Amino acid sequence: MIITNACRWSLRRLPRLSRLSSSCPPELPNFPCVDAHAVRESRLLADTGPEPPYARPSPTTYHTYHHPRPLPLSYSLTPLPSFDIAYETWGTLSPRKDNAILLHTGLSASSHAASTPANPAPGWWEKFIGPGKAIDTNQFFVICTNVLGGCYGSSGPSSIDPATGKHWATRFPIVSVFDMVNAQFRLLEHLGISKLYASVGSSMGAMQSLAAGWLHPDRVGKIVSISGTARSSPAAIAMRFAQRSVLMADPNWKNGFYYEGLPPHTGMKLARQIATITYRSGPEWDLRFGRQLRIPPDPERPPVLCPDFLIETYLDHQGESFCLKYDANSLIYISKAMDLFDMTQPALQALNVKPSSFSPSSSSPSPNAEADPSALQPHKTSHSKSHPPPVNPPPHLSSLAAGMAPLKHIPTLVLGVQSDILFTVEQQREVADALRMAGNENVSYYELGGVWGHDTFLIDVLNVGGAIRGFLS
Amino acid sequence: MIITNACRWSLRRLPRLSRLSSSCPPELPNFPCVDAHAVRESRLLADTGPEPPYARPSPTTYHTYHHPRPLPLSYSLTPLPSFDIAYETWGTLSPRKDNAILLHTGLSASSHAASTPANPAPGWWEKFIGPGKAIDTNQFFVICTNVLGGCYGSSGPSSIDPATGKHWATRFPIVSVFDMVNAQFRLLEHLGISKLYASVGSSMGAMQSLAAGWLHPDRVGKIVSISGTARSSPAAIAMRFAQRSVLMADPNWKNGFYYEGLPPHTGMKLARQIATITYRSGPEWDLRFGRQLRIPPDPERPPVLCPDFLIETYLDHQGESFCLKYDANSLIYISKAMDLFDMTQPALQALNVKPSSFSPSSSSPSPNAEADPSALQPHKTSHSKSHPPPVNPPPHLSSLAAGMAPLKHIPTLVLGVQSDILFTVEQQREVADALRMAGNENVSYYELGGVWGHDTFLIDVLNVGGAIRGFLS
Repeated sequence: MIITNACRWSLRRLPRLSRLSSSCPPELPNFPCVDAHAVRESRLLADTGPEPPYARPSPTTYHTYHHPRPLPLSYSLTPLPSFDIAYETWGTLSPRKDNAILLHTGLSASSHAASTPANPAPGWWEKFIGPGKAIDTNQFFVICTNVLGGCYGSSGPSSIDPATGKHWATRFPIVSVFDMVNAQFRLLEHLGISKLYASVGSSMGAMQSLAAGWLHPDRVGKIVSISGTARSSPAAIAMRFAQRSVLMADPNWKNGFYYEGLPPHTGMKLARQIATITYRSGPEWDLRFGRQLRIPPDPERPPVLCPDFLIETYLDHQGESFCLKYDANSLIYISKAMDLFDMTQPALQALNVKPSSFSPSSSSPSPNAEADPSALQPHKTSHSKSHPPPVNPPPHLSSLAAGMAPLKHIPTLVLGVQSDILFTVEQQREVADALRMAGNENVSYYELGGVWGHDTFLIDVLNVGGAIRGFLS
Repeated sequence: MIITNACRWSLRRLPRLSRLSSSCPPELPNFPCVDAHAVRESRLLADTGPEPPYARPSPTTYHTYHHPRPLPLSYSLTPLPSFDIAYETWGTLSPRKDNAILLHTGLSASSHAASTPANPAPGWWEKFIGPGKAIDTNQFFVICTNVLGGCYGSSGPSSIDPATGKHWATRFPIVSVFDMVNAQFRLLEHLGISKLYASVGSSMGAMQSLAAGWLHPDRVGKIVSISGTARSSPAAIAMRFAQRSVLMADPNWKNGFYYEGLPPHTGMKLARQIATITYRSGPEWDLRFGRQLRIPPDPERPPVLCPDFLIETYLDHQGESFCLKYDANSLIYISKAMDLFDMTQPALQALNVKPSSFSPSSSSPSPNAEADPSALQPHKTSHSKSHPPPVNPPPHLSSLAAGMAPLKHIPTLVLGVQSDILFTVEQQREVADALRMAGNENVSYYELGGVWGHDTFLIDVLNVGGAIRGFLS
């Protein structure tokens, strides 16, 4: 129970006059922001039953590919026995099947990147995908999937484990970004697409985009990595850890086995509030909210402990509107996959999955450096004059260059945002530097200004869209 | 109840062999980081009763000043009827009582800034206070209080309301940083100290330090503001809002009326984890933890959802070690006071408290600018060449300069840290700029590099201590 004070609970429901005659002490403080959790819970129980919206998908609005065979996993010797991948497409696959773009999503997005005849609702990248847009569907066949581990039609913790007939819950294996990509390539094989024109993604989608190039270097024509990283930083892990912690502490989480009852909606709201802080930037909030209050200052009304400043009501609203739209276990698993993402060579060597068609010897540092001395010697490689790799790279950058060696022949666009506090601009430079050190002579690198932080990739059609359009053409 | 799965609960208590014969399904996942909340709760109930350590103060280790008369409050027309202030002192008050330094604390600190004969445990600024140290007790008489609203001996939500004989809880009025300082000045009057040699503080202590100069401009000789601000930013409010939200959502919080039962220890742990992220910096974590795991990578042991990376175990530990040391309501009230802190003129004019001995006309912008045109014209004032105020200041800076006009004659040290994400270096520049625009010709301004972020003031004895020592001498 969130509300243990029954008096408060009833007060909220009584009209003003009744409160005066109530037996409750009139001076008891009121916390509508806390009551909101119980209100939500009672609404969930009364109106819709315990199942949140994501648990009632509309499979008619997307396609589902069922892979009936086992999928090897990065961190488990036991493969996933079978899986589903939900996907949507835009544009037309060319007769030679050489115009496919695989679009990767961020943490919580569905396959619905743009509107379709089956689902006319705007998608999460609506302004970037379509005829004449940055990803031009007159030219390209675009595929977007819900990731493995997600809850929008692909297999994840909220799916039924065929072996038990019950929800996987936290018995679902830990999946990696590489596993997500391997599942997507099984779909590509099903669609008869042997090579992508490009692998495109932002945020975690950028990780997948790089992972696709590493796993299948001969099957990826170009890579677009926007506001991503090749190696999650401890600061980003910290912010995601804070989210997982509040979620897992919600009494409704029940070690992940909540599918028969109420979801951990309060923990989800709190987690989303924290996440939202990392998606935008302080300078944006200075401009947008400043120190404005929800209600104009009034000497008769002292400040309150519930949301008072506009920045607080904004975060509260972001949490409230998200908390029933996404599965808590999917958030935990996928945020963990982001934390685990690391393309330095030792981390890649520890995975149970390997590049599909790339000679293992060419991805280890010493033989590679022997065969092609320029590969790990930044000052000998050809690269953009606007952003050369460091002459004396730190050890982790050399290790990253060695790990990313399979991507050396894939033209790559790396784009970052200076106000991004989650995937910092230093991490963008690291990706570009490592690729150039690995010998990649076709790295396009852009840094954007502006105040939108990490979310810039969702907003800045002019600059983000323009760079993508230029790079793909 | 945190743990609803009785099976998991009992498993933890059984020796290994017994588990094998348990009727619980052996494959159920185990989450020690979640179980920790219930373990803590049962330990609290069994070992010590419901009262956490802060509720059992040792008043013999500090002094308590009881003020028997009402204290006017910034945001309430009803004054606080009476209050206690806990304090400790170091050094000797000079016969003329002109060597007193009032040291202000950050959010959660007690009056125990340094060891004393009564309490030999190291204080929170042990390395900065003592004979021959940055704040030299051979020269100065140092006073540190627990703030109003705190839980280490001063009146706050966990204190007994004399009118009811019960804990104030969330019936305690909203207090401001100005109210904290006014309470401290009642103590100074009790000690017979009419004017401070200096008002010194870091973080929220820096806010108090500036507030002391505004409230009592004729009673403050010098001001030291380290890693503070004159106006809390929306980004900092967002981080504190996230902390309050997780705390207030803890079922044990009970709208603040938890003093008869268990405290919201889980919410406190989660809140402290979030706070800790804001106290340090990403670059420090890159150096200190990188992507190191708690247990060396092992193909037999896949990653887990509980803390796995060292950065996670660090945050977990910080939360665990804090969650019973501080009162949850004090955290909520004092963090709110920080959010409310704003020295722009309109915000100050809305307060019920006013400067004690400063002519009201001289704190309003137009008459002041009339009397002394240089005061609000930065290009006409004399100031440090190393960091001049902007020639075309933004409106909020002019408003801040007008609000801070009472501090124009008080020499002020402003020190900030470039890696501080909570009180950014831009805010430090803002304080210095506003003071200079207000006509203060004795503003010393330093920016420190390094990777320690906001916590630099607790760590960097050489640079922070050195600047203080130089400024005070």
